[in-house]
Amino acid sequence: MNKQQIVLAARPKGMPDASTFRFEDLQLPRLQSGDVLVEPTYFSVDPYMRGRMNDAKSYVPPFVVGEPLAGGAVGTVIDSQSEGFAPGDLVTGTLPWATQSVVPGTALKKLDPSLAPASYYLGILGMPGLTAYFGLLDIGKPKAGETVVVSGAAGAVGIIVGQIAKIQGCRVVGIAGSDDKVTLLQDQFGFDAVVNYKTAPDLTKAIADACPDGVDVYFDNVGGAVSDAVIENLNFHARIPLCGQIALYNTTDVPTGPRIQPMLLTRSVLMQGFIIGNYKDRFGEGVRQLAAWVREGKLQYTETTLTGFDKLPDAMLGLFSGQNTGKMIVEV
Amino acid sequence: MNKQQIVLAARPKGMPDASTFRFEDLQLPRLQSGDVLVEPTYFSVDPYMRGRMNDAKSYVPPFVVGEPLAGGAVGTVIDSQSEGFAPGDLVTGTLPWATQSVVPGTALKKLDPSLAPASYYLGILGMPGLTAYFGLLDIGKPKAGETVVVSGAAGAVGIIVGQIAKIQGCRVVGIAGSDDKVTLLQDQFGFDAVVNYKTAPDLTKAIADACPDGVDVYFDNVGGAVSDAVIENLNFHARIPLCGQIALYNTTDVPTGPRIQPMLLTRSVLMQGFIIGNYKDRFGEGVRQLAAWVREGKLQYTETTLTGFDKLPDAMLGLFSGQNTGKMIVEV
Repeated sequence: MNKQQIVLAARPKGMPDASTFRFEDLQLPRLQSGDVLVEPTYFSVDPYMRGRMNDAKSYVPPFVVGEPLAGGAVGTVIDSQSEGFAPGDLVTGTLPWATQSVVPGTALKKLDPSLAPASYYLGILGMPGLTAYFGLLDIGKPKAGETVVVSGAAGAVGIIVGQIAKIQGCRVVGIAGSDDKVTLLQDQFGFDAVVNYKTAPDLTKAIADACPDGVDVYFDNVGGAVSDAVIENLNFHARIPLCGQIALYNTTDVPTGPRIQPMLLTRSVLMQGFIIGNYKDRFGEGVRQLAAWVREGKLQYTETTLTGFDKLPDAMLGLFSGQNTGKMIVEV
Repeated sequence: MNKQQIVLAARPKGMPDASTFRFEDLQLPRLQSGDVLVEPTYFSVDPYMRGRMNDAKSYVPPFVVGEPLAGGAVGTVIDSQSEGFAPGDLVTGTLPWATQSVVPGTALKKLDPSLAPASYYLGILGMPGLTAYFGLLDIGKPKAGETVVVSGAAGAVGIIVGQIAKIQGCRVVGIAGSDDKVTLLQDQFGFDAVVNYKTAPDLTKAIADACPDGVDVYFDNVGGAVSDAVIENLNFHARIPLCGQIALYNTTDVPTGPRIQPMLLTRSVLMQGFIIGNYKDRFGEGVRQLAAWVREGKLQYTETTLTGFDKLPDAMLGLFSGQNTGKMIVEV
């Protein structure tokens, strides 16, 4: 089979669709000194990648039209001109959406498959796990007995946030978009209550009912009307780690809504936007603690896996309709 | 002349006006043990008092219809049944809007008129000074060379914020509502630039022009469209001490505007609402430092004074049309 890549065909206006992506045959260059030939086995698709499809200044540069998309991946080294990498090594890094790639060894990290299954390095031991860990603990600072609400609760980050909050001794309330997710989070992941935002007749009241002592920490993965309803229920001195705004990523106009500053002011609330790169000096600490909790059975993990390189666009689009429970992974 | 008080005649809907207030003759009770009879010499009127006119849960209880309004005041003790207070003492505390009052001694603090003029205890050495000090330094954490923007820059808090930011070695940009205020802040208070939000044809661009290196700290006294324009210009890792939202205090509907979370997220911005009561354990530190800066000539101070007890309603209403430069004071 020819080597293939998936390029950004055009910048989407609003929701991306099949026309956003184009499959192309791929010729790989010869390896130069320092290069590694790597074959991806798992790709991660993540909501933040939607932002890179726009031509906008952000914390990661935009994708280039006509060039391959790229995302977190685990792969196997096929050939190497880079010291420290040998054929057969398992590696992780940001890789182009291609069936094989030549990348500098400096862009890769070897991973230890004895510690956890390889795909975990894209989830609970990777970006989503670290995002949950640092966002909740460093910004949210939950104390035992407090109430933690997490939106996008069944997503890659949310499902870990809820479990870490339980480890801290908090009451944990999730917000998710289907009754199946509600049941799963309550029965298998230990959430104290979960609100289905799609069916609650009055979301503000539903959250109030699920949080009789108010909301002390709101881990926000979604933004929009869901967050408006949580913010109505904040306690004095509440904290909001601002992690994602997936509800707004596909809007074409500047989204508007109720102004939140008066509420944040009168209740002395902290809101802190963050990206995981802010914590790169502490990744080691995070991975060690997450791995320990997994080993001790305190952190459960789940993935939604689509199979086949050609499923990457579907997986990406599925994030915006809530197709995933836990981490969305494509097995190549 | 009869003793008088000013009561809340009715809760205002939207902007308060003369009908919000009612003057009444006043009979004072006899002093009980622990009481002090005090005659106010200066009253402070402050934007936060608008919130107390609503029947809404907030960090201070609402005023009661038919009962006197109350605010920060400096006064002279006329008679005392409270240990530690004697006739002639200068005191400060929250006093009812009345020409004389009987209050418990525990509600008063003696002040030292040798340190600063008595009215300063309502301004630079009182709530506005402490608000500027803790909000800017504790939340804003300005570093030398950074750019600090303050809205409501000619108000009681803003004019102090700008000067403290200059002491920290920052570039200071104010936002104010008249050309006179612009001139005053630049010429007498050391602001590097001031934008007149009422006349700037494109406020976002005017702020960008005044802040060629972007905005690192935004001390927000006003909210609304002015804040939207500043937020467009925030740098990565910017901080927003959320102090006031005077632009929204008289709205009758829930105010709406562009959602700010996507911007705070992608730029890792911190926004922290606060009230000065959060820092009450550190008031001593704040007053000492502010007094030292005043003594050293590093902090200039200015007041707008109306004369006469009957001017209290006008002074309060004047806050919302920007009648004051610096602290708004009523000399009784």
